[in-house]
Amino acid sequence: MNIGIIGDGQLGSMTIFENRKLNFNFFVLGKNPTAPASRIADRFFGYDEYQEFFNIVDRVVVEFEHIPDIIFENLKNYPNFRALELKRSRIKEKLFLRERGYPLGNFDFSYGYQLEEKIKKFSLPVVVKAEKLGYDGKGQYLVKDILEITDILKNHSLEEGFVIEEFIDFKYEISTIGVRDKNSDKNIYPISFNYHEGGILLYNYAPFLQNKDVEEIVLSLLDDLEIEGLLAVEFFLTKDDEILINEFAPRPHNTGHYTMEASYTSQFENLIRAVVGLPIGSTQTKIPTGMVNILGKSLEDFDTKEILKVEGTQLYWYGKEKKPRRKMGHINIVDKDIGSLKEKIRFVLKNIYSKIPSKV
Amino acid sequence: MNIGIIGDGQLGSMTIFENRKLNFNFFVLGKNPTAPASRIADRFFGYDEYQEFFNIVDRVVVEFEHIPDIIFENLKNYPNFRALELKRSRIKEKLFLRERGYPLGNFDFSYGYQLEEKIKKFSLPVVVKAEKLGYDGKGQYLVKDILEITDILKNHSLEEGFVIEEFIDFKYEISTIGVRDKNSDKNIYPISFNYHEGGILLYNYAPFLQNKDVEEIVLSLLDDLEIEGLLAVEFFLTKDDEILINEFAPRPHNTGHYTMEASYTSQFENLIRAVVGLPIGSTQTKIPTGMVNILGKSLEDFDTKEILKVEGTQLYWYGKEKKPRRKMGHINIVDKDIGSLKEKIRFVLKNIYSKIPSKV
Repeated sequence: MNIGIIGDGQLGSMTIFENRKLNFNFFVLGKNPTAPASRIADRFFGYDEYQEFFNIVDRVVVEFEHIPDIIFENLKNYPNFRALELKRSRIKEKLFLRERGYPLGNFDFSYGYQLEEKIKKFSLPVVVKAEKLGYDGKGQYLVKDILEITDILKNHSLEEGFVIEEFIDFKYEISTIGVRDKNSDKNIYPISFNYHEGGILLYNYAPFLQNKDVEEIVLSLLDDLEIEGLLAVEFFLTKDDEILINEFAPRPHNTGHYTMEASYTSQFENLIRAVVGLPIGSTQTKIPTGMVNILGKSLEDFDTKEILKVEGTQLYWYGKEKKPRRKMGHINIVDKDIGSLKEKIRFVLKNIYSKIPSKV
Repeated sequence: MNIGIIGDGQLGSMTIFENRKLNFNFFVLGKNPTAPASRIADRFFGYDEYQEFFNIVDRVVVEFEHIPDIIFENLKNYPNFRALELKRSRIKEKLFLRERGYPLGNFDFSYGYQLEEKIKKFSLPVVVKAEKLGYDGKGQYLVKDILEITDILKNHSLEEGFVIEEFIDFKYEISTIGVRDKNSDKNIYPISFNYHEGGILLYNYAPFLQNKDVEEIVLSLLDDLEIEGLLAVEFFLTKDDEILINEFAPRPHNTGHYTMEASYTSQFENLIRAVVGLPIGSTQTKIPTGMVNILGKSLEDFDTKEILKVEGTQLYWYGKEKKPRRKMGHINIVDKDIGSLKEKIRFVLKNIYSKIPSKV
């Protein structure tokens, strides 16, 4: 079978190498022929070769949402079009969730020229997010002072749409990943604890806690969005133990890298199982696992060997050009005991960044 | 870094896809450009292109021992040459082990023309093995009647060398895999229970038992053979609880497929870690795991979906042309409980072969 992957990054690359065991062909449609997924695909197609790509593939999965318009049009008859469409606009995503009664923090929509007026209705700080093309903290602003709006609008037009969100003083950021096939068979991975810095995931681990509300929300969203494949959903757990959805992503997710070591079936394998019609695999946990992202570092910037000497560590290195805060690789870490898993996470963070966030 | 793999089969293929996370290049030297490892390598080299292969690679690993002479000559300055040389002759392998005092069953050497005379010194049955090119039961004969020698010699010349081994009425066949790097750092995987049929592994699982003698033997052999990489050692555990070495293999091994699901670090990753100078990874077990070989079957011959519905099963499909008793793929199976793991193994065996060996 020929599996097409839209997107050429590390999520695509892990989708390929984790599923080589099933002996399918993997074709990547992307921007860069030397990107992580492109390099190990059976064939790379540039965006201009999209027609050839769609002709050759039997199934299509998506590893990122920011797909060029012309290619997005071609996805109309493929699964998950609705979910992907919602992800092209933070406003549509929020509206969809609100209309169906999913729990969200207070928010409002605004054009650029209304931002000041609309933000004044919130107590500061607020989080302002551009409607389009935001990921890994891009196009997102924590506004502590109304005067900062002038700076924000330097990057955006006055006609651009924004979402204004009340600042959630959360206890934890958590997430889980659901998987669903077209027979509506579903499964959910355990809930992970996630720690972001500047809008980018720095580390996470699972299983963290159990929460019936989270499970019900994800199972319901999988059906509402008619997902065939994966759906990652990020939540805030507030200081009053309220569950609020932050956002969702209909694709493999950075918060699920840990599943490669932890789970009976990884997120990447379950994605492919779901779309080719194989039974969805168990999401049970073999062993507690953590993940530390390597952001903006090359292999020379930290001591790989010291990290790999730690019992139960795995290096995933994406082979990308170094840029500030870019996701260059990650470390997966397993331990039978959550306490000593956290110690290992601290050790790895300290090795890579020479500092440890307070929340480990 | 450019890793060269000699051999194009599934052991090479798993070596590649399991180590993609480390972002090395993998080049395969082999016979068949459509074989499992060839298809997913960064480049395939036919045997006639061996000079180009050796020019491009920084490290060389071997996934099978039956290497053409001219290529074998080129391995003289690479690690594991000694171990590979011993594996080219069952007689040399036995002599090496005997000289160093490793425990072996009774055996003798013989030319073809002496077979009858030499076998008469043993009580029947005996196992007769051709000196060269035997694997997966090829060139191996269980002789129950002296008259069978005539048939054996139809496949061999009178000048060919043979090993005659007393028939070990074993309680169990067991094995383990050791890993060693050039700093003599070593690690051993747990001991697996192995079940062979007609000289081919049918299924195995681990951890099975602990045995200090086995561990000491493997640690000592790793040093004696100056292994850089993996060494699989197969043993008989006799009815008197004696440990006897059956044979060794200086490469990834079918009895270690289970490590992909079971181990903190798989055999395939530890092979590459050892040869590139990364710390050898932990061989600890996350969860008990079994493996069932799919011999001589195509995907149409059994019900993949029924198998993948079993919690904790993984299909590895090699995409090779079907031949009788050929290794076409395997199923890895995990379970927290050894008892229910064995039940799952029985279920999978029954699904594939419509029968269950007595020894599960």
